[in-house]
Amino acid sequence: MSGFDESMPRVGIVGAGQLARMMVQAAVPLGLTPRLLAARPDDGAALVSPHVTIGSPDAYDDLAAFTAGCDVVTFDHELVNVEALRRLEAAGHCVRPSAEVMAVAQDKLRQRTDFAALGLPVPPFRPVRDADEIATFARGQGWPVVLKARRGGYDGRGVWIVEGRQEAETVAGRARAAGVELLAEAFVPIEREVAVLAARRPCGETVAYPVVETVQVNGICHEVLVPAPIPAGLAEEAEQIAERIAAAAGVTGILAVELFVARGRLLVNEIATRPHNSGHYSIEGCVTSQFENHLRAILDWPLGDASLVAPVVAMANVLGTPETGDVAARLPAALDVAGTHIHLYGKEPRPGRKIGHVTAIGYEPEPVRARARAAAALLAGTPIPEAAS
Amino acid sequence: MSGFDESMPRVGIVGAGQLARMMVQAAVPLGLTPRLLAARPDDGAALVSPHVTIGSPDAYDDLAAFTAGCDVVTFDHELVNVEALRRLEAAGHCVRPSAEVMAVAQDKLRQRTDFAALGLPVPPFRPVRDADEIATFARGQGWPVVLKARRGGYDGRGVWIVEGRQEAETVAGRARAAGVELLAEAFVPIEREVAVLAARRPCGETVAYPVVETVQVNGICHEVLVPAPIPAGLAEEAEQIAERIAAAAGVTGILAVELFVARGRLLVNEIATRPHNSGHYSIEGCVTSQFENHLRAILDWPLGDASLVAPVVAMANVLGTPETGDVAARLPAALDVAGTHIHLYGKEPRPGRKIGHVTAIGYEPEPVRARARAAAALLAGTPIPEAAS
Repeated sequence: MSGFDESMPRVGIVGAGQLARMMVQAAVPLGLTPRLLAARPDDGAALVSPHVTIGSPDAYDDLAAFTAGCDVVTFDHELVNVEALRRLEAAGHCVRPSAEVMAVAQDKLRQRTDFAALGLPVPPFRPVRDADEIATFARGQGWPVVLKARRGGYDGRGVWIVEGRQEAETVAGRARAAGVELLAEAFVPIEREVAVLAARRPCGETVAYPVVETVQVNGICHEVLVPAPIPAGLAEEAEQIAERIAAAAGVTGILAVELFVARGRLLVNEIATRPHNSGHYSIEGCVTSQFENHLRAILDWPLGDASLVAPVVAMANVLGTPETGDVAARLPAALDVAGTHIHLYGKEPRPGRKIGHVTAIGYEPEPVRARARAAAALLAGTPIPEAAS
Repeated sequence: MSGFDESMPRVGIVGAGQLARMMVQAAVPLGLTPRLLAARPDDGAALVSPHVTIGSPDAYDDLAAFTAGCDVVTFDHELVNVEALRRLEAAGHCVRPSAEVMAVAQDKLRQRTDFAALGLPVPPFRPVRDADEIATFARGQGWPVVLKARRGGYDGRGVWIVEGRQEAETVAGRARAAGVELLAEAFVPIEREVAVLAARRPCGETVAYPVVETVQVNGICHEVLVPAPIPAGLAEEAEQIAERIAAAAGVTGILAVELFVARGRLLVNEIATRPHNSGHYSIEGCVTSQFENHLRAILDWPLGDASLVAPVVAMANVLGTPETGDVAARLPAALDVAGTHIHLYGKEPRPGRKIGHVTAIGYEPEPVRARARAAAALLAGTPIPEAAS
């Protein structure tokens, strides 16, 4: 191997899904060649990287062996053994974000409690163990009640909306049987869902990305529209919330904050402490992508400009359907949609699975959105949606 | 390996330098995982790719074994055994651009002859074997005479400007001893050097990129400025020249045409039939980069929009100097130059070697150029140049 390569810091990524795949893409121009700890050799990032170790993010021995070969370790997902990370930190290894931040990212109750303590707006909540406690909560907040798994849910899994005591009993019973702790939240009339990203270095330097609207269907992000069509005051408040959380939690790398707009006000929903689906648009849409700024941040390098390169950016996820079939055969038609940027993750197109995304940039929201949607639909094998929604 | 990965066409790249490295970067979002035929395991692209075969682009056996594992083969450089490519084509393999196009790309005399036959403007030229023939040429065109190696020269190597018969004898003698054929050209008063790229598919679809100015020092490209500051009529003519050459030669992939502006007119200098240093700016500067369009073209997929995403783009090469030393240590300061995109090639910084480039985009030429230059100088360890030149 060349001396050049050996002079660069060795970045390790735990997990090898599409976030790691796009981190590797951002790393190469900086002269970095990340190491991956992949669950499987055909994980999206493992397919395109020469430095792949197969192992489990739950196993201390796998994490320790992997970390020994890296100068700094970061993450593709939250599903990592936090106790193992604490031991690695105690042994002097550089884990970014830290084990403590990863513990917060895994724990929705901890997030609600910490953010409420910071004075940030969150929906009314409480931890609940059974239908009695849910019913007590509903007496104050009314039905329906939103029940969430305290840990492990994402993309609509682990969230239940219960209309009354009977339903609450069913969900609580199943959760107890599965060893899942529950959190009850007031049902709020969501006008929009928005998200904001910030990148933060260990030295404290922080940059915030523009606030985006995330269009969710059944709890799964389908589209991201930038900038979010919300009043400037709310957008500023959202950026300030992200910066406050990043500083208070001591995040290093990208922090994503998902928020609801309800009754004209912001409510913090949840966070992720890694590059996030709501920021994929930044690869072409911002001067510096979330993936590059995540790497810069965990290496304590100067952060890049997070501003938009065009007035409007839209991103559409490509979700597998039973009709998707052979994506390779669908690709030329999608490439024929002018002015779109296609990103495939190297994944089998199982129904509901995010297998790629498409970004379009331009001047007017509707035509830009229509282009991203059209190419994504051509890749997924679904009907091309109408331009206006 | 996943079924997804196996469903995609297998692209092979002969050579693993920075062009292959950037082609691989463009390939991954399209779901492609190129195979590389690398001369050395620490070649820039080999460092970042999981599919590397070590072998020689001169050896038929190496090329044949490599090609057998690919659906289409393309190139990082011209220094390939054309006879071997012809044999591979005869055996039914898909080589893009074709062996015939690669033969033209290797041969400056063939280029001059073919382009003159197309009626395109070229400097007066003739093949010369000795000082007598050079002197005869000079009687018509005057001294100095430009002598070029018919094959193999690039970046200022293989070009000599001779002032009279004595010097001509020295160069001709050395060339004969080295088995190098020479070409004499009239010395033209070059006002600017410009370049234009076109991507062409086998089906004939062609897109041209904006004409750029290439700022050369001692025959090496230092900077690229887009759009080139030339009259619109000349820019149109340059684009038409590129499209005519691409069609006449049957190019598939990227064609780069380097031209002189002399006495207010264009003269075709030489071509390359692969992504080209004059097009690196397109990664961030155009809707579709030259690397992505090269891949789309060789796969006969629809070509992407080659227009600029901003009014002005500047690219500065990072050239190693005796002072460069440890690029990794220089990187944070360069990243601190706002709004630049750094690309490192994973190469040891030997003096004069291109080890990376920096791109900046914006609205006004001088500040954009100054940013690209400043970051490149910080990486190379050279003084930061003045903004205006």
